[in-house]
Amino acid sequence: MSGSDQILGVYLSPTLDLQSLYGAELERADPDIAVLRPEQIDDPARVRFAVCWLPEAKCLAAYPNLELAMSIGAGVNDLLGNPGLAEGVAIARVRDPHQAALMAGYAAYEVLHVSRGFAELAGSAAQARWAPLPMHAPEATTIAVLGNGTMGAAVTKALRALGFGLRVACRSTPADPIDGVTYCTGPEGIIEAVTGARFVINILPLTPATENVLDAALFAAMARGGWLVQIGRGEHLNEADLLSALDSGQLAGATLDVFRKEPLPADHPWWRDGRLRITPHIASDSIPSVVAAQILSTVRELRDCIPLSLGVERARGY
Amino acid sequence: MSGSDQILGVYLSPTLDLQSLYGAELERADPDIAVLRPEQIDDPARVRFAVCWLPEAKCLAAYPNLELAMSIGAGVNDLLGNPGLAEGVAIARVRDPHQAALMAGYAAYEVLHVSRGFAELAGSAAQARWAPLPMHAPEATTIAVLGNGTMGAAVTKALRALGFGLRVACRSTPADPIDGVTYCTGPEGIIEAVTGARFVINILPLTPATENVLDAALFAAMARGGWLVQIGRGEHLNEADLLSALDSGQLAGATLDVFRKEPLPADHPWWRDGRLRITPHIASDSIPSVVAAQILSTVRELRDCIPLSLGVERARGY
Repeated sequence: MSGSDQILGVYLSPTLDLQSLYGAELERADPDIAVLRPEQIDDPARVRFAVCWLPEAKCLAAYPNLELAMSIGAGVNDLLGNPGLAEGVAIARVRDPHQAALMAGYAAYEVLHVSRGFAELAGSAAQARWAPLPMHAPEATTIAVLGNGTMGAAVTKALRALGFGLRVACRSTPADPIDGVTYCTGPEGIIEAVTGARFVINILPLTPATENVLDAALFAAMARGGWLVQIGRGEHLNEADLLSALDSGQLAGATLDVFRKEPLPADHPWWRDGRLRITPHIASDSIPSVVAAQILSTVRELRDCIPLSLGVERARGY
Repeated sequence: MSGSDQILGVYLSPTLDLQSLYGAELERADPDIAVLRPEQIDDPARVRFAVCWLPEAKCLAAYPNLELAMSIGAGVNDLLGNPGLAEGVAIARVRDPHQAALMAGYAAYEVLHVSRGFAELAGSAAQARWAPLPMHAPEATTIAVLGNGTMGAAVTKALRALGFGLRVACRSTPADPIDGVTYCTGPEGIIEAVTGARFVINILPLTPATENVLDAALFAAMARGGWLVQIGRGEHLNEADLLSALDSGQLAGATLDVFRKEPLPADHPWWRDGRLRITPHIASDSIPSVVAAQILSTVRELRDCIPLSLGVERARGY
């Protein structure tokens, strides 16, 4: 196969060195497929796909014959809203089961930490005090999970296996519902799911419809003294409404892993707010070998003119 | 129905007020069934069953016509080895799905805490430092679960839903194996399950065969830098062997929820050992309403001469 039959791609990220993450696996896999850094490309018109993480508009716009923009993450809001991306360019994203399992682990950890009083237990242990806390049937703790994609479904499955009461807000009832889980669909699905819930776990995709979905009305519908676990995107959260709900006691606290501006600056007051548990966007991450394999399979589908298994519906936004 | 047709039981526990826990639910449920405190009983010969938690031998021996000793917990080692219990007395115990779910939550919390580095993340957050840690596919973390009763199976199911690699040591392959879990049976099952495992979760019943099962040979078979989660009984653990394994670095640490002597005394050095995470026997607890219902159903089976659904095989020990 000659060089001219190669399908050529470009790495585009201002913050991550994508070639060092995926290059070794992509480059040895298939002689038909090449991925280069922008400075290695002689003829931008030959580039048919881009492997992206938060790409800048002007960088995307430099490739006039781009057919595919592939996000290395599960969210594609930075591609959908990107003025550098022409309308006809297909968008795809990674769907990594390990990433979903990591997300489920994070959510389970936070729910268990709060509902079982592990902070208080650790405080007693530090003082050599044997001080058990009363326990409650997990079934009696209602958790609302917002979102039922690969991530949301994994979170729900794990929390159900831990015996909790689960309600899931989703577009439509899934083909493979989990036993004992209530699915809340339609335009009122979110408010229905959170009503009376002790925990709300947000894992929705970010679209214009879901921006600021975590607001005063949602917090007010939860059980008093509830807890938010925010592992979607920073833009889902109305920050002023969260602080009001904490001040009034409607929420006892919140776990925040994602922020409008990341990293969260060292002088941000949230680091020192005892009602908040802050982590540095580590609820989940993709595993490089899995991402590389999915980039390859998607590029092969593009080459062979097969519908993209990991393609995103632009109108829907995920 | 006259008083003489009543089936009479007695609460026997030196440490727990069982009547205040279960009395309200037992007393209103069935006019045929009465349970009283020892001091309320005029004629010990009329007592046919005992509701027990760590009963003293002399207290059990006071009832010559006892037919059933029912433990309010899942473990019955304190009944099986009790010299106050005549050979013909049936033994039964509670099997509470909430208790299993609580146990699964505890095990999941500890595995996640250690494998995801949540202590280090909390340390960074306390200093307002945005410091993500590298993440690994949960599948690559092998966890050995020792025991596959109601509790062990719930632990395994939850950890599998969180994506971990699972091996289970059990008597025989279960009728309903969990997808992706390796079951290790037979006399070498335990050592097979733990070989190369990063985590070992002990949830075996305590029998003469399992006493001191957590010993130097078991720790040596695990992956170097492994972690023990001990939620069985204190007598499962060879304490000197644990300390040696920690000192040599073969184990990085251990989570201990059960002890040979409980409460763990305030001057015990383990409270101050940074390699150990100590909790006050709170991995699980039974829910009083569930226990009361299972006491009732067992006493009804006794009355109606039906085999006891929650009966224990004395020879096997669980």
